[in-house]
Amino acid sequence: MKEETKITPLGGVGQIGSNCTLIQNKGENILIDCGILFPYEDFFDLNYLIPDLSSIDFKVNTIIITHGHEDHIGAIHHYIEKFPEAKIYAPLFAKKLIEAKLEFKKISKKIILFTDPISVADIRISPLHVNHSIPDTKGLMITNDKTDTAMLFISDFKVDKTTPYEKPFDFKSVEGLKVNYSRRLAFLDSTNIMSKNRRTPSESELYDNLKKSIESTTGTTYITSFASNIHRVQTILNIAKELNRVVIPYGRSMLRYMATATEIGELDDNGVVKDADDQSIKRSKIVLLSGSQGEHRGTVRRVVTRQDKKFKLKPEDKVIFSSKAIPGNEKKLSLLYNTIIEQGAQLLTSNELLIHASGHPGKDDLKEVYEAFSPTHAFPIHGESLFLKEHISFIKKHSLSNEATMILNGDSITIGKEISVSKVKDPKEPVIFHGSDILIEKERLSERRKMATLGTVIVSCSKESTHKIRPNIEISTLGLPVKADSDIDDFKSYLTDIMRDNKGRPISDTSEKVRIATRRFFNERLGYRPLAIVHIC
Amino acid sequence: MKEETKITPLGGVGQIGSNCTLIQNKGENILIDCGILFPYEDFFDLNYLIPDLSSIDFKVNTIIITHGHEDHIGAIHHYIEKFPEAKIYAPLFAKKLIEAKLEFKKISKKIILFTDPISVADIRISPLHVNHSIPDTKGLMITNDKTDTAMLFISDFKVDKTTPYEKPFDFKSVEGLKVNYSRRLAFLDSTNIMSKNRRTPSESELYDNLKKSIESTTGTTYITSFASNIHRVQTILNIAKELNRVVIPYGRSMLRYMATATEIGELDDNGVVKDADDQSIKRSKIVLLSGSQGEHRGTVRRVVTRQDKKFKLKPEDKVIFSSKAIPGNEKKLSLLYNTIIEQGAQLLTSNELLIHASGHPGKDDLKEVYEAFSPTHAFPIHGESLFLKEHISFIKKHSLSNEATMILNGDSITIGKEISVSKVKDPKEPVIFHGSDILIEKERLSERRKMATLGTVIVSCSKESTHKIRPNIEISTLGLPVKADSDIDDFKSYLTDIMRDNKGRPISDTSEKVRIATRRFFNERLGYRPLAIVHIC
Repeated sequence: MKEETKITPLGGVGQIGSNCTLIQNKGENILIDCGILFPYEDFFDLNYLIPDLSSIDFKVNTIIITHGHEDHIGAIHHYIEKFPEAKIYAPLFAKKLIEAKLEFKKISKKIILFTDPISVADIRISPLHVNHSIPDTKGLMITNDKTDTAMLFISDFKVDKTTPYEKPFDFKSVEGLKVNYSRRLAFLDSTNIMSKNRRTPSESELYDNLKKSIESTTGTTYITSFASNIHRVQTILNIAKELNRVVIPYGRSMLRYMATATEIGELDDNGVVKDADDQSIKRSKIVLLSGSQGEHRGTVRRVVTRQDKKFKLKPEDKVIFSSKAIPGNEKKLSLLYNTIIEQGAQLLTSNELLIHASGHPGKDDLKEVYEAFSPTHAFPIHGESLFLKEHISFIKKHSLSNEATMILNGDSITIGKEISVSKVKDPKEPVIFHGSDILIEKERLSERRKMATLGTVIVSCSKESTHKIRPNIEISTLGLPVKADSDIDDFKSYLTDIMRDNKGRPISDTSEKVRIATRRFFNERLGYRPLAIVHIC
Repeated sequence: MKEETKITPLGGVGQIGSNCTLIQNKGENILIDCGILFPYEDFFDLNYLIPDLSSIDFKVNTIIITHGHEDHIGAIHHYIEKFPEAKIYAPLFAKKLIEAKLEFKKISKKIILFTDPISVADIRISPLHVNHSIPDTKGLMITNDKTDTAMLFISDFKVDKTTPYEKPFDFKSVEGLKVNYSRRLAFLDSTNIMSKNRRTPSESELYDNLKKSIESTTGTTYITSFASNIHRVQTILNIAKELNRVVIPYGRSMLRYMATATEIGELDDNGVVKDADDQSIKRSKIVLLSGSQGEHRGTVRRVVTRQDKKFKLKPEDKVIFSSKAIPGNEKKLSLLYNTIIEQGAQLLTSNELLIHASGHPGKDDLKEVYEAFSPTHAFPIHGESLFLKEHISFIKKHSLSNEATMILNGDSITIGKEISVSKVKDPKEPVIFHGSDILIEKERLSERRKMATLGTVIVSCSKESTHKIRPNIEISTLGLPVKADSDIDDFKSYLTDIMRDNKGRPISDTSEKVRIATRRFFNERLGYRPLAIVHIC
């Protein structure tokens, strides 16, 4: 049927990150968001993952961005490369962040401001104002009057009725969809579905607690927050003004986000912002503001371990984490917390006091949105598989939708006369990028793992000398204990014997014999076989 | 003063693991426990860490083991090597586990059963029966009648008043200390001090929930538990008997612990235990029991990802985690949970139902022990620094001790006329072991990190050919993207030019030039400089 609409999430369901959803109608292809997935511990400092775009064999003419978080805009350059002709729409803050990214990458591309509805084929996509942890976040109302269908697509939102920084969630428009369309599909945020917090606190509830915490610090206050959380930054700037303190943004990311927000009028620096090099400020007046998840070379870690050149933690200082651990970072952060305690400084996290509010809805917040929309079909998004399942149980328990179905990346929903789901047979694995946006293959990664867990031994010998009494053998061990090197002379004579025994055989044979012998030699001494590379040249 | 006693924790305070505490009196040196610290994510599959024993320049004649967990016995062979003459005392289950370990390592050493008090110099060390998550765990009552001092040292315990498997915590003996000694020092477990559970549930509270969960499974039940938690294993065996199901222990660790426990009568197999190779058992009758923290090659992971040869997860199956995530494993486990959900199988964790009880005390349990002992001095142990600080706040808030002081590894408490603490100036870093108990140095680890995060390029060339038009150059790239290899011909001619330019200079000069050029070449293409090894041989 020509009229049918097809929805296919390419990323963002089954994992949190690399958000990208394909909408197809009458030969037109629309993408929502172009995000990255952050790698987890196993992935050796790799930069990011994105859906595998290589197999997409059609044109995309329209890309719509909902907000400026990296899991929604971080891969935009890859999508521009793949779909150079697509028109890209984004809300103002996201537009500015994307433009800065493209400038850095020397890519020229116009980003169109997304304020008014966009019509493509029979589909109309209208922005919906929602609250979130970055300014200027849009939900999407995707309507098709011909098929009497409305989709409410909000991957990231919270319901904040008292925030001083933006209007509350636009329930009125959602209710309008309920009145005007008889088929209603909900695609809503599952991030906090496992949380015990039924209601996500308002940004406005943090002010007093943060103020008290800063006011009671006798030394320097170090405060960490997500750099993109401009409303949190504004709260801290407002408190600093009230307490007559000075805020020093520290770290590239914090400076960059604050500059962009200030440029578009989303942030007022209150005259309290100073430079890290300003030596005239009393230490006890300073509120040092940075982003941190306890990263190896992150600002707070440097300060706390006393490796930062400008700021070093002292016992009278306080470190306030106005943020939470991104899953996978728990251990890194707890090591950082311990270091703070060991230095005798004060530590405050959101476990002890309400000084952080999530950007995602609690169960009761979700319920309110479901009730305003009253969907006929629900497909939870923005969550790990476990979250999606819990979200569906929640919908069923409270009868929030006639139907609720789990979809994962690659599955398709077809909206024709009926609404049906087809499961993808061979879901594509996301691809991994490192360095200057260079794709790195899985098998090459497993080489990295081998080197890291087993160490490497490199043996070189000149072709001419292999059969001599003293062949020119060079050996390097990488990542092996000092003990491994103490036997190097034994190892050389062992190799000499092997090469002599192989006299007359092809070089490749000798080389393979030496490789196997190398691994065996070290296995006997260390209890594991290092990676061995042999060059006979 | 000759009479004074000195206590120095070598491991176990400031981190959880590598428990070892030194007690000194009148020239006698006693060690309590010889544990390992499990490495966390950054440490590339390394095996374990222990305190640096190299600087200890005195003899230890007595080693006392409190229980059989690896963080208390795992490094015993290193301590035996360092102190070959020490007498080692351990409770029965720990003794058996140590003996199996020593047999495997081909070390011959007698382990003495620790049931009666041990006297060394003026000190008397008596075992105290406590509850914990491994059978046969002892607290220590360390008394010195000459100085009127009693120490209550319990690094791991819970208060379980209704467990069917062992006697409850021995409060009577603790109260005896309160009556008989005027100076009382408490060294108690901080593991659960951050927990919101004020009372740790009894092992007996799990039976009904686990029974219901197993009973309602229509396919195979996969259940994971810590292998050393013999009482949990017994609970599962008892439930299986009641439900007429069969338990198959799976994985080396589970089999090993169960065999040892059965040998000493700590476990009754109820006739329900079967072998994994028994093909005659109906799938729906099977309760497959294994340990799991979501390890890369762990049993449950293999089953769930359908890579195990004998068992493959099906949609009608259920996976029950009767355990909790060890800090640092959260992400690995949540990926495993997602995979279970994606296969359509049921998942049950202790977040949804009380099917796991900790082996450590909640705040109210601790309070009960403090009240029975009524210490004059408290030094929290067995916890990260953050936990120790929280434990001290808790003691002060409830006036559980006259004094409460934070000590970290290396700090010393001197019990003379006064009781005083001296802080260590340069605390020793723990040392790291890998493979067959081989120490690996920090700088060698950083080589591993470099290889894993940057990849490696190896260039070899025979000495004679460096100045030829076509030198014999061999190149290997490890852990670099395929793209890096596509430029290998360019790279060879680039290197040929460099070698020709260096004609006549010393080999070491040429080698260094080639190394720098190699890193530069790949940096231009990839955005990072791989590790480069150059052999001119």
